[in-house]
Amino acid sequence: MRIAMLGSGFIARFYADSLHAQRRVDRIHLVYSRTASNAARFATDYGLSYHTADMREAIQHPETDVVLIALPNHQHMEAVLACADAGKPVLCTKPLGRTAEEAKEMLMAVERAGIFAGYLEDLCYTPKFLKALKSVQSGSLGRILWTKSREAHPGPHSDWFWDKDKSGGGAIIDLGCHCVEIGRNFIGKDIRPLEVMCWADTQVHPIDAEDHAIGLVRYANGAIGQFEVSWTFRGGMDLRDEVMGTEGTVWLNSFLRTGFEMFTTGNGGGYVAEKAESDSGWLFPVGDEAHELGYPHMFTDMFDAMEQGREPLETFYDGYVVNAILDAAFASAASKRWEPVNL
Amino acid sequence: MRIAMLGSGFIARFYADSLHAQRRVDRIHLVYSRTASNAARFATDYGLSYHTADMREAIQHPETDVVLIALPNHQHMEAVLACADAGKPVLCTKPLGRTAEEAKEMLMAVERAGIFAGYLEDLCYTPKFLKALKSVQSGSLGRILWTKSREAHPGPHSDWFWDKDKSGGGAIIDLGCHCVEIGRNFIGKDIRPLEVMCWADTQVHPIDAEDHAIGLVRYANGAIGQFEVSWTFRGGMDLRDEVMGTEGTVWLNSFLRTGFEMFTTGNGGGYVAEKAESDSGWLFPVGDEAHELGYPHMFTDMFDAMEQGREPLETFYDGYVVNAILDAAFASAASKRWEPVNL
Amino acid sequence: MRIAMLGSGFIARFYADSLHAQRRVDRIHLVYSRTASNAARFATDYGLSYHTADMREAIQHPETDVVLIALPNHQHMEAVLACADAGKPVLCTKPLGRTAEEAKEMLMAVERAGIFAGYLEDLCYTPKFLKALKSVQSGSLGRILWTKSREAHPGPHSDWFWDKDKSGGGAIIDLGCHCVEIGRNFIGKDIRPLEVMCWADTQVHPIDAEDHAIGLVRYANGAIGQFEVSWTFRGGMDLRDEVMGTEGTVWLNSFLRTGFEMFTTGNGGGYVAEKAESDSGWLFPVGDEAHELGYPHMFTDMFDAMEQGREPLETFYDGYVVNAILDAAFASAASKRWEPVNL
Amino acid sequence: MRIAMLGSGFIARFYADSLHAQRRVDRIHLVYSRTASNAARFATDYGLSYHTADMREAIQHPETDVVLIALPNHQHMEAVLACADAGKPVLCTKPLGRTAEEAKEMLMAVERAGIFAGYLEDLCYTPKFLKALKSVQSGSLGRILWTKSREAHPGPHSDWFWDKDKSGGGAIIDLGCHCVEIGRNFIGKDIRPLEVMCWADTQVHPIDAEDHAIGLVRYANGAIGQFEVSWTFRGGMDLRDEVMGTEGTVWLNSFLRTGFEMFTTGNGGGYVAEKAESDSGWLFPVGDEAHELGYPHMFTDMFDAMEQGREPLETFYDGYVVNAILDAAFASAASKRWEPVNL
Ligand SMILES: NC(=O)c1ccc[n+]([C@@H]2O[C@H](COP(=O)([O-])OP(=O)(O)OC[C@H]3O[C@@H](n4cnc5c(N)ncnc54)[C@H](O)[C@@H]3O)[C@@H](O)[C@H]2O)c1
Ligand SMILES: NC(=O)c1ccc[n+]([C@@H]2O[C@H](COP(=O)([O-])OP(=O)(O)OC[C@H]3O[C@@H](n4cnc5c(N)ncnc54)[C@H](O)[C@@H]3O)[C@@H](O)[C@H]2O)c1
Ligand SMILES: NC(=O)c1ccc[n+]([C@@H]2O[C@H](COP(=O)([O-])OP(=O)(O)OC[C@H]3O[C@@H](n4cnc5c(N)ncnc54)[C@H](O)[C@@H]3O)[C@@H](O)[C@H]2O)c1
Ligand SMILES: NC(=O)c1ccc[n+]([C@@H]2O[C@H](COP(=O)([O-])OP(=O)(O)OC[C@H]3O[C@@H](n4cnc5c(N)ncnc54)[C@H](O)[C@@H]3O)[C@@H](O)[C@H]2O)c1
Repeated sequence: MRIAMLGSGFIARFYADSLHAQRRVDRIHLVYSRTASNAARFATDYGLSYHTADMREAIQHPETDVVLIALPNHQHMEAVLACADAGKPVLCTKPLGRTAEEAKEMLMAVERAGIFAGYLEDLCYTPKFLKALKSVQSGSLGRILWTKSREAHPGPHSDWFWDKDKSGGGAIIDLGCHCVEIGRNFIGKDIRPLEVMCWADTQVHPIDAEDHAIGLVRYANGAIGQFEVSWTFRGGMDLRDEVMGTEGTVWLNSFLRTGFEMFTTGNGGGYVAEKAESDSGWLFPVGDEAHELGYPHMFTDMFDAMEQGREPLETFYDGYVVNAILDAAFASAASKRWEPVNL
Repeated sequence: MRIAMLGSGFIARFYADSLHAQRRVDRIHLVYSRTASNAARFATDYGLSYHTADMREAIQHPETDVVLIALPNHQHMEAVLACADAGKPVLCTKPLGRTAEEAKEMLMAVERAGIFAGYLEDLCYTPKFLKALKSVQSGSLGRILWTKSREAHPGPHSDWFWDKDKSGGGAIIDLGCHCVEIGRNFIGKDIRPLEVMCWADTQVHPIDAEDHAIGLVRYANGAIGQFEVSWTFRGGMDLRDEVMGTEGTVWLNSFLRTGFEMFTTGNGGGYVAEKAESDSGWLFPVGDEAHELGYPHMFTDMFDAMEQGREPLETFYDGYVVNAILDAAFASAASKRWEPVNL
Repeated sequence: MRIAMLGSGFIARFYADSLHAQRRVDRIHLVYSRTASNAARFATDYGLSYHTADMREAIQHPETDVVLIALPNHQHMEAVLACADAGKPVLCTKPLGRTAEEAKEMLMAVERAGIFAGYLEDLCYTPKFLKALKSVQSGSLGRILWTKSREAHPGPHSDWFWDKDKSGGGAIIDLGCHCVEIGRNFIGKDIRPLEVMCWADTQVHPIDAEDHAIGLVRYANGAIGQFEVSWTFRGGMDLRDEVMGTEGTVWLNSFLRTGFEMFTTGNGGGYVAEKAESDSGWLFPVGDEAHELGYPHMFTDMFDAMEQGREPLETFYDGYVVNAILDAAFASAASKRWEPVNL
Repeated sequence: MRIAMLGSGFIARFYADSLHAQRRVDRIHLVYSRTASNAARFATDYGLSYHTADMREAIQHPETDVVLIALPNHQHMEAVLACADAGKPVLCTKPLGRTAEEAKEMLMAVERAGIFAGYLEDLCYTPKFLKALKSVQSGSLGRILWTKSREAHPGPHSDWFWDKDKSGGGAIIDLGCHCVEIGRNFIGKDIRPLEVMCWADTQVHPIDAEDHAIGLVRYANGAIGQFEVSWTFRGGMDLRDEVMGTEGTVWLNSFLRTGFEMFTTGNGGGYVAEKAESDSGWLFPVGDEAHELGYPHMFTDMFDAMEQGREPLETFYDGYVVNAILDAAFASAASKRWEPVNL
């Protein structure tokens, strides 16, 4: 695949590192970034033949086989619509929309255009998740009663995350989208999410959006998908999932306790892991972060699906359901009662 | 790269799974196996265009860019020499030889032939190991004083492992080769290993070779590289490393505690992880075993090195040093004193 | 102290084992049990001089320095009132009442009688909890934002637990009382709990009461105390707490991961830990369960407090606040909205 | 029991804290310390009625029921002999002697005098150890093949430890005594230790004695008891044991991973745990250190044994065997071969 990358920020680089690693066959061939100099630097860093500050040019470029959207949340819709216009397969980073309304518009656009569309929900592709899901699906845990997915760290790196208009919300939209979809996978994508109860607050940061939230999603079969999201956690990036079934339980820790422990007085220093907060004392580095976060398995599924003419594991429809659940979470945080999921 | 696979057993399949996963560009194009039917089945399973029961034919095949030796230990030398004869790049699984003498002959053969030769020591390519090594090399742990590498499980799967003539020994040669090279990397490949003290015994299995051994390798700078190997461990595959330096410590667990815990009453069952001993109660599955064991990063380094005309991280020379250390270990187990490493 | 034990069931034995261990000076001198034969057996097992099937006799016995209530929930009030009548110091197991109304009546009775009264909330006395609380109180975690306390196991051992009239509820009253008080301690006993949002359901067991519930308690300073309780967990007894503050975090595991791991094929067998579900495979025994669960430190505080004429760390007032919070939890589970805590 | 404490240093305080905690019945009634002012301060701190700078006076005091030796290693023999002279029961801290010769003299003295004598090997009394030992003895692990006991920290606190004449050695005598006795218990006290292979070096500290050593003790039934001791470890106090048997395995971690994890930016600060090296970042506090280290259970056994006229679990004979094994370890470190254990 020849990939057009839209965006040159944090996740664009993470994606590019994953795509170009391990002698994979698919390559980014061009990058679009609003600011020409950023596009140019990105192109240099990843050895791309072409860069542009014109999004449509990137999408329509004849050698572009697939478009990869790595732009801020408020740019997703415009970019997706442009791909639909151009008839180009599209992969969009999370969250799909800022609201279910946006997500639905994108979903309908790609369906109308008949293009391949993948939802880049990496945390539903981590090797641990995939193996746990297989165990769950094979019945090792019996009937699923409850899931908990937690993502918490000290807060994001770019201004736009903190601006509700651009992002669509705070920790709920940024991190909740992962957690909700993890729970939904374990409970079963065929089970309808009915209603949501959510607490949200701005406890620490000087922002309008919530920096901490906890929610419960109730499904039609009585199962509960709990999410815990925070931009106020101290200690690194806390990524943990739990599943409880009538016959067993699963605990996953994707970042802080993965079998790598290190103590150092601080000599040498150096990078530990994304969002790590110290470089001395006991540290918990992560071997291969992109892998642990699911990027390689995610892109493999996406490109394989394109070639095989099948749907990927995570589709725009999934992204839309996630947005609908998060809409209900926001409503519940405001109304202080359970709110229905409108699908 | 077009790869000729020699062997169709356990490790050949593990290698093939790793090589053909994740949309990597390099492919196995043919397989050699002594037994034609095994070769045929392997070819079918991996979609290979060609299979043969004639090793030289596989090596000399015009489309063979590189040969991958996945044969029992007593077949490594013959296969390497055949590659040298044919002038074909060669990758050989561990251990390189059954003795340093064999390893030296292979080393000299590939040097004389001027071919690329890589030593497939996967555990020196696990993402955890690579990151830990970088920390060590950057000085985060200060001067390295001691390393411990432990590999223990209930015992191997094929008969030839238990036959000293074919294997060259028991747990020492089979597992010690990993442990010794892990320690040597952390201590520094430029530091000379001087002498070895080793205890070995046959505690459980009805075999001639040792099924349990513990050894200390003393290096010229006073550092100690400890290895603990066993075919008598109950509880799965125990893969742990430790490094102690004047400024810090590292603990790695590559298999039994990697952030994935599961309890099940036994419903559903299914595969847990290599050498796992039960499928109910508390289980510790491994997300992506090949990755956790270093295969993808190992092959990436090998093929990148070939293309870039550089040495891989693990060379035949390294394999030879490992064999020399293991020779000293066997000597020490017999003499009950420290024995010199003859390089 | 000479202790009169009321009850001879599960917790009475756990208490007795703790009290008579480690050469402690305080002794149970008599036991009351409804069924005379049970009283007699208990007296024999613990070497007591006296036993009776008459509760008031036990309380009023001239050598009774303090009464220890280890009866089912619906018997707490009667027993406490009898102690107040008799002017005897009283220690009551958790939960204090089945409702805040009951708890308030007990609280007022002991205040009117001017007797010492201690609330036996053992999980607020575990050595881990006490040390964590000290860290929290010294400011190591900054301002506390959120706490999570989780107690989950496959379900209780006696019939009366499952009978809502006798117990006052299911997992919420049985386990939630612990979790709520743990959170309240970390957040600060001087901070008023305002309202509760709770989900509860009967997912597995054929009972009226809830066997699984999750609740959030919002405090006046904005902090949230989360509780997760279940009688449907598979895998043993899951006892975990977390605290998040602006400057740090604490994670406690009191039972399943305490630094003791064991694999066994099942030979030998034997007791592993309370609520453990298997005796082969990987097991997680607990060194000294009573200690890990806080009993020794709890009784030390109680008796020291009596002697020193001070209040214990956990009082009947605390028990009453806990009941008031749980009342709100039940109300919220029914109304599906946040419900006020009425104190 | 009325206890005469000899010594007022680090371990004397640890013992006193344990003895006077949790409303135990036994009390220290007097303290001896070489320096009168230290004795006085200790007496004040622990509310003792009496203190003295005359050791024999302390021992012979008519109210002394039992003598507790908490003096440096080179003072153990003199103190024990004085107890034997006085016919007073004696408890001696580890190691019993600096050599087996010393230990034997003490053993013979107490036997001749017919006094009760206990060897204060606390790490063979930790709740984890006791429970693991019970599992081992009940056959859960089958036939024991190997044990590993590791104690490592950055180095001791008092000068005399570093002076070979006074201490009898470095890390081997100081920490090895624990590790050797732990292994011996798991393998079986009735199995004869035959020979020892040991590496020892002075890698970091400017001392004569070894600051790091690793040894293997071979028992008559072929089992191996491995010890790893170091005064050069960075990261806190590393206390881990492992046992491998034909049917299972046990892993114990007594200090660094006990289910208590904490991250702090450093606000508040305060004591974390013995030998902890930092007070910010990820920390691993220990709930109740004395308990985790076995002191309460050890004293309970000692005093119960005295009262019941039986031997304690750890006797002077055990202390003597440990010294004999350590003598062989020193000999082996010098001769570079296996050395016999002379009993
Ligand atoms: N795990 C994940 O999948 C994951 C992780 C992080 C971010 N993301 C998602 O990736 C997207 C980008 O996040 P990021 O962390 O890379 O952000 P970033 O701020 O690091 O990068 C954003 C990029 O978009 C460009 N940009 C900003 N505003 C723009 C505008 N108005 N028009 C066009 N370009 C604009 C910036 O120049 C930059 O190149 C977001 O949707 C985010 O939710 C996903
Ligand atoms: N981590 C690792 O790198 C790792 C792991 C396992 C094995 N290995 C190594 O791989 C090699 C093969 O081990 P395995 O586990 O695959 O063994 P295996 O027994 O599963 O497979 C061996 C293969 O060699 C063939 N074979 C056996 N004897 C032969 C002979 N005399 N001539 C030709 N072919 C013969 C068998 O038919 C089979 O195809 C060994 O050297 C072993 O040490 C490496
Ligand atoms: N961690 C803890 O603090 C903890 C743990 C378990 C139980 N508990 C509490 O202890 C109390 C007893 O629980 P348990 O687990 O010991 O129950 P149990 O059923 O094992 O024992 C209850 C005892 O009360 C007696 N009893 C039952 N009904 C009675 C009645 N109507 N009148 C008088 N006696 C009666 C029974 O014979 C038995 O001796 C409960 O309040 C429970 O919540 C506390
Ligand atoms: N886990 C354990 O069981 C454990 C732990 C630490 C120490 N110990 C043992 O306890 C003993 C004391 O160690 P410590 O850590 O308390 O040492 P320390 O230096 O802290 O205290 C030693 C005490 O002995 C006194 N002392 C020193 N030299 C003396 C002399 N020549 N005559 C009389 N008194 C003298 C000191 O004043 C001090 O009161 C040692 O044998 C040590 O091995 C055991």
